[in-house]
Amino acid sequence: MALIVQKYGGTSVGNPDRIRNVAGRIAKFHGEGHQLVVVVSAMSGETNRLIALAKELTPTPDPRELDVVVSTGEQVTIGLLAMALQAAGVPAKSYTGGQVKILTDDAHTKARILGIDDAAIRSDLSEGKVVIVAGFQGVDVGGNITTLGRGGSDTTGVALAAALKADECQIYTDVDGVYTTDPRVVPEARKLDVITFEEMLEMASLGSKVLQIRSVEFAGKYKVKLRVLSSFEEEGQGTLITVEENKNMEQPVISGIAFNRDEAKITIQGVPDQPGIAYQILGPVADANIDVDMIIQNSGHGGTADFSFTVARADLDKTIGVLDRVKTVINARGIESDKTLCKVSIVGVGMRSHPGVAAKMFRTLSEEGINILMISTSEIKISVVVEEKYLELAVRVLHKAFDLDRLA
Amino acid sequence: MALIVQKYGGTSVGNPDRIRNVAGRIAKFHGEGHQLVVVVSAMSGETNRLIALAKELTPTPDPRELDVVVSTGEQVTIGLLAMALQAAGVPAKSYTGGQVKILTDDAHTKARILGIDDAAIRSDLSEGKVVIVAGFQGVDVGGNITTLGRGGSDTTGVALAAALKADECQIYTDVDGVYTTDPRVVPEARKLDVITFEEMLEMASLGSKVLQIRSVEFAGKYKVKLRVLSSFEEEGQGTLITVEENKNMEQPVISGIAFNRDEAKITIQGVPDQPGIAYQILGPVADANIDVDMIIQNSGHGGTADFSFTVARADLDKTIGVLDRVKTVINARGIESDKTLCKVSIVGVGMRSHPGVAAKMFRTLSEEGINILMISTSEIKISVVVEEKYLELAVRVLHKAFDLDRLA
Repeated sequence: MALIVQKYGGTSVGNPDRIRNVAGRIAKFHGEGHQLVVVVSAMSGETNRLIALAKELTPTPDPRELDVVVSTGEQVTIGLLAMALQAAGVPAKSYTGGQVKILTDDAHTKARILGIDDAAIRSDLSEGKVVIVAGFQGVDVGGNITTLGRGGSDTTGVALAAALKADECQIYTDVDGVYTTDPRVVPEARKLDVITFEEMLEMASLGSKVLQIRSVEFAGKYKVKLRVLSSFEEEGQGTLITVEENKNMEQPVISGIAFNRDEAKITIQGVPDQPGIAYQILGPVADANIDVDMIIQNSGHGGTADFSFTVARADLDKTIGVLDRVKTVINARGIESDKTLCKVSIVGVGMRSHPGVAAKMFRTLSEEGINILMISTSEIKISVVVEEKYLELAVRVLHKAFDLDRLA
Repeated sequence: MALIVQKYGGTSVGNPDRIRNVAGRIAKFHGEGHQLVVVVSAMSGETNRLIALAKELTPTPDPRELDVVVSTGEQVTIGLLAMALQAAGVPAKSYTGGQVKILTDDAHTKARILGIDDAAIRSDLSEGKVVIVAGFQGVDVGGNITTLGRGGSDTTGVALAAALKADECQIYTDVDGVYTTDPRVVPEARKLDVITFEEMLEMASLGSKVLQIRSVEFAGKYKVKLRVLSSFEEEGQGTLITVEENKNMEQPVISGIAFNRDEAKITIQGVPDQPGIAYQILGPVADANIDVDMIIQNSGHGGTADFSFTVARADLDKTIGVLDRVKTVINARGIESDKTLCKVSIVGVGMRSHPGVAAKMFRTLSEEGINILMISTSEIKISVVVEEKYLELAVRVLHKAFDLDRLA
């Protein structure tokens, strides 16, 4: 008998039929003797409908009141799922975030969990009840309803699993696990049975949308065994996300390939090659709330250098506006930008013990005539910026070069 | 400067535009220096949508979980109204029933209010904020969400007005007040400026649907000044419902005419004329949860009598089923029933001091050839049962006979 936290996303509970299916799946686990805490999202489309209502009233709704409105989406789902379970003969009880209670800070629409009172849940579990908790929401010390931000239901699930010391936290989605890369780009992409938290974090931050990145961080920090599964398939073990690297079998060098089309590159030419220049350029950019990703400074000749960095495409115009002012101050020669770029990354803890991974990546791309414009590396990841038109080709040849299409 | 509780029904907040209109009305009152507590219902159609979702899962949803689901309707409205007010420059803060908190018993889907904690509301009011409270809902001692049953938002408004000792409780609806009778039946029907609680209760129990009867009882008990107004008209004083009879002007004899088509009459013939017979007949009917309205027993000849009573039409077949068994026990001759009847009632505190009102009513009906089948009276009401085909005629001639179409 295990204590399992399960989280079902909006698509999995998108209509009464699907809620009934989820109830059937829970009933099966319950019948096997497991203790179950189930976290649910709003029915798909519901959160957007509620936000649209608010935006009809004002383009900038008060965050406290927006949380009051938006949090009803999950509240509807918990009640419906509880009644579906009871109708199936399974004792169940629903809790809003406030009822649990899931205490958060007061940063409305993006609150952080401070603590979870597990007394009521433990009492219900010991009575054999399935406990159903609204994801994505909590309550601050003043009793105000808060929400954790988009995808926050994953975080609720992981936080509950940590608080309850659950044996496993299962995240049910509309995909059956984490893939070596997007199967729409590489049909040979393969589901991974296991991936480490570090790899998952890199994959998530690079644009793989299976799990919300905060929930992965949280699970890693509290050593919660996390599993991604499909709610539409009866069988299948999904992908287990673990703290430990797999020591039993040959570690693959690369676990996955992530990519991101949303890249724009800016180069400031003829920057004086002197200390403090990076801060003079990036300080004003950060002040304008623009996230900078890769940064490259080429020491040049004649005491000047070229300074390049990438931002999200939506931020490009704003960034250029900031730099137009900076340019005069630092006496740079000019500004160039390019928004037809993308980023391709290979991720894997195996590269720690395998030298030559970067060289293999660069050679593979070079053989296809793909020019690398920027490079950035971490301990378990190598990212390159290339022209967007090469994205599919680059992912495909790398997938093959690192043997990702073969069974591990 | 007054402390006013305003309640807006589902039609008044049925879409973002209407919510914005309500916000404008509230802003006007706030600008005049009044302290405002605003109770809102779910947007029209929302409660039915939520109930339908539940019924798709099970025909008999668990009442606790149904309350979790249904209470989200009002929660959405309070958040939207608060942000609309803030967008209009009016400080506002929303409260769910649980946040207030409005303590109820644990009779889910039909809970009764036990008490209201007014501390937070008073604090917000003193800071100049408009306080917005979700109608229809509360919380039991265990922190479970409860609802007060259909129309419960009126009760929330009156209960808040009583707890806060508000100067007035204004109920905004889609009609501009209480009328002498239904204007669809009598075009000359006139809006009443004032009506007493007793009269309003009689009108409500007889089928006038302007206010929920529990809220009127509650207002009468706690001496809350209640006013019914239209949320779609800028001007207009609506109808004031008061404890005091109007002593300043000539009291009209009759304030209004109510009617109800939903009547069925049952007669048990040849009942032994002996003590305890009424209980022998009506005891089993009450045990079957059937509400009996009017009751008449005609002492007959030869030691037998005819015993008649009325029930709602939907209960007729069930009632006859019960009486078929009773008939044998008490040795009655037979059972007759008629479901083509209606009830017409004249209501007015003035009839206390005016003898001859009943006689005038009966003469008026007789002059039109309308046969009276049953009569029942209270201190301020006379009801007659007549054939349903005479309903409109009866209401019209009584309206005219008692001068209701003339300005008071």
